[in-house]
Amino acid sequence: MGTKENIQIQAIFFDLDDTLCATSDFSTQARFDALKAMINIGLKMDIEVLNTELKELIEEFTSNYPHHFDKLLLRIPESSYRGINKAVLVAAAVAAYHDAKHNYLKPYPDVLHFLQYIANIPILKGVITDGLEIKQAEKLIRLGIYPYFHPQAIFISDQIGFSKINSKTYIHICSSLGLSPHRTMYVGDHPMKDIDSANKAGLISVRIRREGKYKTLEGKTKACHEIQNLQELLQILEERYLGKEKNECLNI
Amino acid sequence: MGTKENIQIQAIFFDLDDTLCATSDFSTQARFDALKAMINIGLKMDIEVLNTELKELIEEFTSNYPHHFDKLLLRIPESSYRGINKAVLVAAAVAAYHDAKHNYLKPYPDVLHFLQYIANIPILKGVITDGLEIKQAEKLIRLGIYPYFHPQAIFISDQIGFSKINSKTYIHICSSLGLSPHRTMYVGDHPMKDIDSANKAGLISVRIRREGKYKTLEGKTKACHEIQNLQELLQILEERYLGKEKNECLNI
Repeated sequence: MGTKENIQIQAIFFDLDDTLCATSDFSTQARFDALKAMINIGLKMDIEVLNTELKELIEEFTSNYPHHFDKLLLRIPESSYRGINKAVLVAAAVAAYHDAKHNYLKPYPDVLHFLQYIANIPILKGVITDGLEIKQAEKLIRLGIYPYFHPQAIFISDQIGFSKINSKTYIHICSSLGLSPHRTMYVGDHPMKDIDSANKAGLISVRIRREGKYKTLEGKTKACHEIQNLQELLQILEERYLGKEKNECLNI
Repeated sequence: MGTKENIQIQAIFFDLDDTLCATSDFSTQARFDALKAMINIGLKMDIEVLNTELKELIEEFTSNYPHHFDKLLLRIPESSYRGINKAVLVAAAVAAYHDAKHNYLKPYPDVLHFLQYIANIPILKGVITDGLEIKQAEKLIRLGIYPYFHPQAIFISDQIGFSKINSKTYIHICSSLGLSPHRTMYVGDHPMKDIDSANKAGLISVRIRREGKYKTLEGKTKACHEIQNLQELLQILEERYLGKEKNECLNI
């Protein structure tokens, strides 16, 4: 991997959050909208104080915990929402959060162009993402990028019994699709889950440093390539991994 | 109740589903959209066959069961979605169902006018509904009708430990707000849960027969009033329940 010689790749996989879409930004904005909706219903609290409490709660219970707003009400003074039905407060927050999916959840501006470009190249295109299966699958649908990937090359950690922090994830996926790890590229933003693990499994790792929350975090190993956007990856692909000969088309 | 003499009412409560909004129509359309979304992703099934299966499933598991689409996939031939990630199919259905909330969930056309009219009348306005608390509360928010009700007069059966089929629901609510049942009006579409129960508790029951699924079902007792829309209720209120004297304003 990463030698000066051309390696014709068989497949390219992408991480989802903060690689193809600005999940961190989306979540920040969606949660803020949710808190504003609670205040509009009558909750008497300063939004910044609420936001700090919500951030702490998410640190404690993880971002995939399904009852953030119910829990938030337990943590703030009951006097701040006396006389208001708690379910209405929570529902207002949940509705605003869901609405934000329409308003803010978009692919990064370079993503569609990149996916359209590689659509005609006979390599397998897929997604490997950690997270809850319906939540991650919904992002693929809402972002409008699902059609660019092979239906059998969508891997969500919840479904496969591995998390990406374990390099076996990548070995398992390559093996199940008959791919050589050293001819498989993986693009992600997380230095350990995406880069260290993919490196350990022998993949061609590409670290993308956008504005996501892991931008400045460093892992144990260096990525084979480091980019700031997918436009840069196009050039790397053309120069190093997509020789003039056609790659074989995989039949899965 | 229902005498020829004027009774000055203290409060009016409404059922939600198929009284203030066309929930039956909405659900039918939203489920159909969800099935279409699955077919768009690649599910190979006739939509009518799928729809029949989904209807049966909902009969068996109730409409509030949270995993309709996962369960639906278990009931149809696996060959109809071979090679497609099940989470993507389910997510496509769920996303389409949620989107339908924006497109179809609206108050009946007479509702806002009616609520605006009674907004200036000093009686307590509330909602008594069976169902899941966040789901019902979300409807109040999305329909834009929440501001017309007193924040302490929103009752969702899940929160109060009674279902409307039990007349104690109405007695409990009147007692908790210091209302006389015979000066409290309840408007709903369900002959047993809304009318028989409200009658048994001594309320002024109003049956609304719109196009909802209980339109032709009959209960044990007759409602004090029967209407087809809220315009008709305005007239009844003016003639019988809102004399020229001001009603006392409740301080809760």
